[in-house]
Amino acid sequence: MVDPKILETFPNPAPGRDYVIEHTHHEFTSLCPMTGHPDFADITVRYVPDKVCVELKSLKLYFHAFRNEGSFFEAVTNTICDDLGRVMKPRSLTIVSRWKARGGFTSTVTAEWNAKAIRAKRPR
Amino acid sequence: MVDPKILETFPNPAPGRDYVIEHTHHEFTSLCPMTGHPDFADITVRYVPDKVCVELKSLKLYFHAFRNEGSFFEAVTNTICDDLGRVMKPRSLTIVSRWKARGGFTSTVTAEWNAKAIRAKRPR
Amino acid sequence: MVDPKILETFPNPAPGRDYVIEHTHHEFTSLCPMTGHPDFADITVRYVPDKVCVELKSLKLYFHAFRNEGSFFEAVTNTICDDLGRVMKPRSLTIVSRWKARGGFTSTVTAEWNAKAIRAKRPR
Amino acid sequence: MVDPKILETFPNPAPGRDYVIEHTHHEFTSLCPMTGHPDFADITVRYVPDKVCVELKSLKLYFHAFRNEGSFFEAVTNTICDDLGRVMKPRSLTIVSRWKARGGFTSTVTAEWNAKAIRAKRPR
Amino acid sequence: MVDPKILETFPNPAPGRDYVIEHTHHEFTSLCPMTGHPDFADITVRYVPDKVCVELKSLKLYFHAFRNEGSFFEAVTNTICDDLGRVMKPRSLTIVSRWKARGGFTSTVTAEWNAKAIRAKRPR
Amino acid sequence: MVDPKILETFPNPAPGRDYVIEHTHHEFTSLCPMTGHPDFADITVRYVPDKVCVELKSLKLYFHAFRNEGSFFEAVTNTICDDLGRVMKPRSLTIVSRWKARGGFTSTVTAEWNAKAIRAKRPR
Amino acid sequence: MVDPKILETFPNPAPGRDYVIEHTHHEFTSLCPMTGHPDFADITVRYVPDKVCVELKSLKLYFHAFRNEGSFFEAVTNTICDDLGRVMKPRSLTIVSRWKARGGFTSTVTAEWNAKAIRAKRPR
Amino acid sequence: MVDPKILETFPNPAPGRDYVIEHTHHEFTSLCPMTGHPDFADITVRYVPDKVCVELKSLKLYFHAFRNEGSFFEAVTNTICDDLGRVMKPRSLTIVSRWKARGGFTSTVTAEWNAKAIRAKRPR
Amino acid sequence: MVDPKILETFPNPAPGRDYVIEHTHHEFTSLCPMTGHPDFADITVRYVPDKVCVELKSLKLYFHAFRNEGSFFEAVTNTICDDLGRVMKPRSLTIVSRWKARGGFTSTVTAEWNAKAIRAKRPR
Amino acid sequence: MVDPKILETFPNPAPGRDYVIEHTHHEFTSLCPMTGHPDFADITVRYVPDKVCVELKSLKLYFHAFRNEGSFFEAVTNTICDDLGRVMKPRSLTIVSRWKARGGFTSTVTAEWNAKAIRAKRPR
Repeated sequence: MVDPKILETFPNPAPGRDYVIEHTHHEFTSLCPMTGHPDFADITVRYVPDKVCVELKSLKLYFHAFRNEGSFFEAVTNTICDDLGRVMKPRSLTIVSRWKARGGFTSTVTAEWNAKAIRAKRPR
Repeated sequence: MVDPKILETFPNPAPGRDYVIEHTHHEFTSLCPMTGHPDFADITVRYVPDKVCVELKSLKLYFHAFRNEGSFFEAVTNTICDDLGRVMKPRSLTIVSRWKARGGFTSTVTAEWNAKAIRAKRPR
Repeated sequence: MVDPKILETFPNPAPGRDYVIEHTHHEFTSLCPMTGHPDFADITVRYVPDKVCVELKSLKLYFHAFRNEGSFFEAVTNTICDDLGRVMKPRSLTIVSRWKARGGFTSTVTAEWNAKAIRAKRPR
Repeated sequence: MVDPKILETFPNPAPGRDYVIEHTHHEFTSLCPMTGHPDFADITVRYVPDKVCVELKSLKLYFHAFRNEGSFFEAVTNTICDDLGRVMKPRSLTIVSRWKARGGFTSTVTAEWNAKAIRAKRPR
Repeated sequence: MVDPKILETFPNPAPGRDYVIEHTHHEFTSLCPMTGHPDFADITVRYVPDKVCVELKSLKLYFHAFRNEGSFFEAVTNTICDDLGRVMKPRSLTIVSRWKARGGFTSTVTAEWNAKAIRAKRPR
Repeated sequence: MVDPKILETFPNPAPGRDYVIEHTHHEFTSLCPMTGHPDFADITVRYVPDKVCVELKSLKLYFHAFRNEGSFFEAVTNTICDDLGRVMKPRSLTIVSRWKARGGFTSTVTAEWNAKAIRAKRPR
Repeated sequence: MVDPKILETFPNPAPGRDYVIEHTHHEFTSLCPMTGHPDFADITVRYVPDKVCVELKSLKLYFHAFRNEGSFFEAVTNTICDDLGRVMKPRSLTIVSRWKARGGFTSTVTAEWNAKAIRAKRPR
Repeated sequence: MVDPKILETFPNPAPGRDYVIEHTHHEFTSLCPMTGHPDFADITVRYVPDKVCVELKSLKLYFHAFRNEGSFFEAVTNTICDDLGRVMKPRSLTIVSRWKARGGFTSTVTAEWNAKAIRAKRPR
Repeated sequence: MVDPKILETFPNPAPGRDYVIEHTHHEFTSLCPMTGHPDFADITVRYVPDKVCVELKSLKLYFHAFRNEGSFFEAVTNTICDDLGRVMKPRSLTIVSRWKARGGFTSTVTAEWNAKAIRAKRPR
Repeated sequence: MVDPKILETFPNPAPGRDYVIEHTHHEFTSLCPMTGHPDFADITVRYVPDKVCVELKSLKLYFHAFRNEGSFFEAVTNTICDDLGRVMKPRSLTIVSRWKARGGFTSTVTAEWNAKAIRAKRPR
């Protein structure tokens, strides 16, 4: 399991303003849990910060940690969304993963973070 | 007739969240029912899953089954929409087929799944 | 005058659903009524069918019939919109013509079909 | 000063319909009023005609007349908007000028024509 | 600290109209405050002018002044937004900074100017 | 038959130098001699002039004359090569025709003019 | 086995000149002989004709005949080269097949026809 | 007539090495000597310097001087070649002019400077 | 160390002809031996086969084996060249590796296989 | 003056083979010695190594050292060529600098390293 404790934050330099930060990682790779073959994706993190911003180098290391993990497209996207939501508690957050060609398909998964929905699902 | 029983599903890993999954197949081919000549298309399946997601390899085999079927652009698109709607019962579903150049034309057909409309149309 | 009787239709295979069909012809050519020089355009027909769909080969022949007609960009677009509106009586219809470079200009004309407006304008 | 009397019009062939005409001139050039150096732009005229349409060749000659005029990006755009608004009295009108690289910058100016606002500003 | 006094303005030539001016600087460079390595960005300034417009050459010099400053993406964007907002007091203003690839990431920061929010945040 | 007498020439302004002139016509259209359907091509004329250059407007009219002629790709290309060779007697001449998609194919035909070969072939 | 007798020819309209004809088919598809999955390619036929040219419609039907054949990239390319070489006996001939993404790979196979080499290889 | 005396030079900083300098001006414009309409081109100057290099700002002013001159494509290109050849006496020099779309044509003219050929042609 | 025994071959189907096979793997990734960070490349294998061809699936597995290996660009390229040269003994072989952006750089390494040079270098 | 001692090397891992290494730096910036304004370029270093290769991180730092240096395009390119030639003594070496738009121009300078020519030029 990838450990979200790798993620570090720094104070939002403009907390009096709602503004949008978008980071796209072009070098995400994980493994297909069925075949063990590598998958490749661009992952976009788009958010309006509240108290903190995610530090870019720690975000890179967090993404690198998926390199040898087997995980489905849908699960990877939801996991990243949950981890970043819990760490930053942003005003809003969207994760978009765009997966390269696999068997003639390209795939995109888009998840938005919603504090309440998560709380209802995760108390266990 | 292409058999929708080829389609397999797996449980939605994040049922507490409305999120969007989009698969585009870049290698769809069928036959023109008038001339028997091959047609080529990109087919996009975009949906918000409810209880299940469609398994990608079974979706590929389902699309391959059209290879030697004669069918109009409009009919192919509506059939895929109906089949995936019945198998996944998703919160929403859109099918977009983009057909390559044929006689100086390119064509796009876009259909949205609507449980009630389908129910009214199909009991006969 | 181009004869809209060339246009043929077939029954809508999914009348219980509002869905969008878009055909783009990349090889439209007519003549400039001022200079006699050829004009070239891409013509897009986008519609929600009601009882019938337009048959693609007849649409091609209808467009070919403009080859040696002299007509302004604005008139060609409105004529195609009227002819297809009357033949298909679609739930909605938009025609977009995109004209290639002419004297340093490119031009686009976009017309939507509206049964009532047409009726008011045409009884004469 | 460029003379808007160069602009000619012809009767709208489909006055019973609101439809959009868009002409983009890819060869606009004027002079920087500060340095005298040439500036280059694409100018888009997008409008819904009322009683008349602008004739394309006269529009080209009108644009050519700026060739040796010194004028700021903002002034050129507003002047074209005012001149075409007064000549055509269209149902709506937007001018977009996209200026090529100058000192590491590209610039776009977008103005919409509004009969009343103009009237209030111009009685002098 | 970059000095916003470099920024010069000229009177809005069309104050009776709400229109949009957009300047994109393709040659912005500053330094990473952590590593000292250079960062590169395209910076877009999009605004509706009120009494004044920003003079383009002074905007270039203002951007050049960041060349050897160490500053985070988020801070650069908010600083430019605040400086241009205070100097022009525009009807609206948006700053978009698009940062080139760094460690496999591209980043975009988008901030809108809001006179009141700024006033509340800055009296200190 | 298209008449090469349409072609006009003017004296080469730099006969003391071997230099290359290349004109590409992006709006060539003729008819398929089998089906009567329109074909579209880009035609490139590349030559080293000797005593004369071909006048561009007459070249355009010469190409327009093919509009309603039925002719195969290979024949069109060789005819243009022969006609321009005889009219200009250039130091060298190449014709390249690039035909748009037809039945899933694109085609290119390239012919070089050779005074002697032509003489041997055409004395009849 | 695909039957090369489908291929038809017509007399070269300019046998007195060495010129190049190139046809690229963008819709070639065959099956992988290992997995039965479809493969897709662009196939280019480039040749200098001698007595005859290949007729384009028959070439399309010849390519369509591979649709349900299982064959390796290398074998398909050499077979097409041999078949067209024997049917046309051209002055020169090159076949290039460019295969779409399969397991993260794209592939290109290029074969030139050589009457003697073929003769030496095939009498057995 | 454009005056080549505008052109300035500076000493070649590496006369001991044959190396290539290429400047492309993307904003060249002149007038058609037949119609008076503006023509637009990209002009490339590629040379191996001998004793001097051409100074870039003076080259820009030299090109600007063609703005209101009527001249054919072929003449413009040969004039630039002659002027730069005489001013720089380079080890080699090529001029390429690429003209934007005019009546459905794009054109390219390529001339190489040759000291002897020029001398033979110009003693008058 | 990656084991070249993963590589499998099959008999060349056309040994009587010199023809070119080119496979490009778009999903190569290894680790930087200095920092441990991932590197990404496209690797092209271009060869003229002699007795055998490399089997594509085994080539994919061979490339996957580099996933967690630390190796410099130059070493990876030469290793692949040596391994494929020894396994296939081809008539000719070129390896091109194109590495994605790293610290503002992209890199390409190109090595050709030469049986004799290798023999001289490897007897140890 | 930029100090070439920043450049570090490592032993060529395949000295028995002539192979090509190409590094392109996409983030080069220096200052115009006339105006002090920033210039931007892509710099390509292409070489066949002999005993050593240049270490990539030291090459980056060497390029960064030009950031606040005033230097002409031609001089920058020849300096880099000389410095890398002296440090690596490669079997061959080419430097290509491609400069971004400046006053409507883009420029490219290409220099090849030649041990003897340099020796003749530099002993002074």
